[in-house]
Amino acid sequence: MEKVKESGTMNNCEVETPKNITIKGIISLLMQSVDEKCDRSVISLGMGDPSAYSCFHTTPIAQHAVVDAFQSDKFNGYSPTVGLPQTRRGLEVRRFDLLPDKGWEVDRDAIEVLADQNTVALVIINPGNPCGNVYSYQHLKEIADIAEKLKILVIADEVYGHLAFGKNPFVPMGVFGSTVPVLTLGSLSKRWIVPGWRLGWFVTTDPSGKFIKTKVVEHIKKYFDILGGPATFIQAAVPYILEQTDEVFFKKTINILKQASEICCDRIKEIPCITCPHKPQGSMAVMMKLNLPLLDDISDDIDFCFKLAKEESVIILPGTAVGLKDWLRITFAADPASLEEALVRVKSFCQRHTKFI
Amino acid sequence: MEKVKESGTMNNCEVETPKNITIKGIISLLMQSVDEKCDRSVISLGMGDPSAYSCFHTTPIAQHAVVDAFQSDKFNGYSPTVGLPQTRRGLEVRRFDLLPDKGWEVDRDAIEVLADQNTVALVIINPGNPCGNVYSYQHLKEIADIAEKLKILVIADEVYGHLAFGKNPFVPMGVFGSTVPVLTLGSLSKRWIVPGWRLGWFVTTDPSGKFIKTKVVEHIKKYFDILGGPATFIQAAVPYILEQTDEVFFKKTINILKQASEICCDRIKEIPCITCPHKPQGSMAVMMKLNLPLLDDISDDIDFCFKLAKEESVIILPGTAVGLKDWLRITFAADPASLEEALVRVKSFCQRHTKFI
Repeated sequence: MEKVKESGTMNNCEVETPKNITIKGIISLLMQSVDEKCDRSVISLGMGDPSAYSCFHTTPIAQHAVVDAFQSDKFNGYSPTVGLPQTRRGLEVRRFDLLPDKGWEVDRDAIEVLADQNTVALVIINPGNPCGNVYSYQHLKEIADIAEKLKILVIADEVYGHLAFGKNPFVPMGVFGSTVPVLTLGSLSKRWIVPGWRLGWFVTTDPSGKFIKTKVVEHIKKYFDILGGPATFIQAAVPYILEQTDEVFFKKTINILKQASEICCDRIKEIPCITCPHKPQGSMAVMMKLNLPLLDDISDDIDFCFKLAKEESVIILPGTAVGLKDWLRITFAADPASLEEALVRVKSFCQRHTKFI
Repeated sequence: MEKVKESGTMNNCEVETPKNITIKGIISLLMQSVDEKCDRSVISLGMGDPSAYSCFHTTPIAQHAVVDAFQSDKFNGYSPTVGLPQTRRGLEVRRFDLLPDKGWEVDRDAIEVLADQNTVALVIINPGNPCGNVYSYQHLKEIADIAEKLKILVIADEVYGHLAFGKNPFVPMGVFGSTVPVLTLGSLSKRWIVPGWRLGWFVTTDPSGKFIKTKVVEHIKKYFDILGGPATFIQAAVPYILEQTDEVFFKKTINILKQASEICCDRIKEIPCITCPHKPQGSMAVMMKLNLPLLDDISDDIDFCFKLAKEESVIILPGTAVGLKDWLRITFAADPASLEEALVRVKSFCQRHTKFI
């Protein structure tokens, strides 16, 4: 849409609404302007939220419906209309490689080549999706040192935080906040297995106050003004969830993920045309390399996945969808029995399509 | 942020991910590609949503926390970080007037002057916030005819739909779908008094299929890919809420709003420096005109509202925030006793600041 006309301004309007005046903003200023010494209750007729008054109340029908849906336990997953974040438009993204032979570590040399005076941030994902990497303290320290040298901040996507089951423990990037300012993205989705609750957060680790100077946090807040935000009662539940969740729950998840990742790697070893350069140490996914010359009538990863879906009813993501042609992303967050069954089918598929030399 | 470097692509990458390949998109195609005649269950290792498997399950702690927050009934309102939609950047918005002396009807002549060959849509808000207007069938028909003549679609913001308590019944714009394609915005927020649940919807009324041709719906879907979406279990509750809510519940809300709007208009009549050109017929707000020459030391609507907040602990939105200088937006969605009390204080404030001639 190029042009939209809209109602919302009216007759007798002598001035345009100043760009810096928002309803929320002005009401917040008005609230601050109330005389604190006055003991009368503040009455706000400034914003339409009748739910603040007991005479307005939602219907029990609506509440029962949500409690029922909630308690049915069927609606914690992703909802069908939720898609990929495509929030990178407007800004230029420069991609660096992760090195499969070094446990999908960041290619540090590439970063120094790619960065210029306009570069503001370096993004890392740890534990990593789609590679299953968990970075060592030492590697994260190296990343912090590079970012400090380049005078850029680090954005750490840690939505898989704590889901580590290999030799490296999970180290939050914020640990290096005194070297470089860190903006960390976290979420309930993965660690609590509730992606459909749509709740995540940003945390800043910035003892030197660089985010304040550059107004990064302010800009993020404006962005959330556009997005709306999670349902209020889910937000309200967060402190209790963070404080009260038992370590036993986390351990159980990690144990199943570890077991599932091992099933995945063991079964793949039996399939010559698929190799795993780096055993996953965290998150819920692993990248596997497709050895196409061993296969007879498969042209690439996309062809492999479509034929596999058709012939074996097994869905695997072609690597092309995450930028890596002729690789496969296998998500092992499935129950061990389903995972075993799926990989038996993949093996059978590969055997059927293997070239006879 | 001007440039951000990020991980996510990897070594050995021969091609960039094609712009039209998304994980969701390709998985959906793979699912369609499964052989339907095959009676084996489909196993997806394509996307990381472990909540689909019973061995992965969120902790009862998290569920109890949400049920508790939900049942406390304290978290149905707006959450503090939710702000104004500022989604209009990128497209040009041309504003037309609403006419206070004609019940805030659309200025039809202005629309024909403002529209040009790039104009794609006309936006109306009915029932209207901030004006409290409810458009007649006849006026909506006129709007449909203009839009049809200009070959533009109508976007009807009907989040206050059905909240009408004056002489005009609420008529959905979709009624005129055979004249002009209509994109209607609806919501649980107002009619069910649950703004914090963050759930709304778009409905198209387009018997001639113009939206399909122009891909409007496709573009909106892509936009929702960026936004995420409402919590899944709230989405799941919607059909039950829509089907089962009793008419008695709606009538009760409308009765209170009608009563509140009458209190508002009656009390304002006792205050000479504030006038109401058009009694509200719907929604939860009304625009009142400030007669500044009658006041002694008030420079404009913003000055009025800040002094009122300080002296009387009453919050009213200055009209400037919705584009109408020296007007006031009064939200009457308050319980009648609070509303009466607030307006007594406004009267006292105005008396104190009245010019003595």
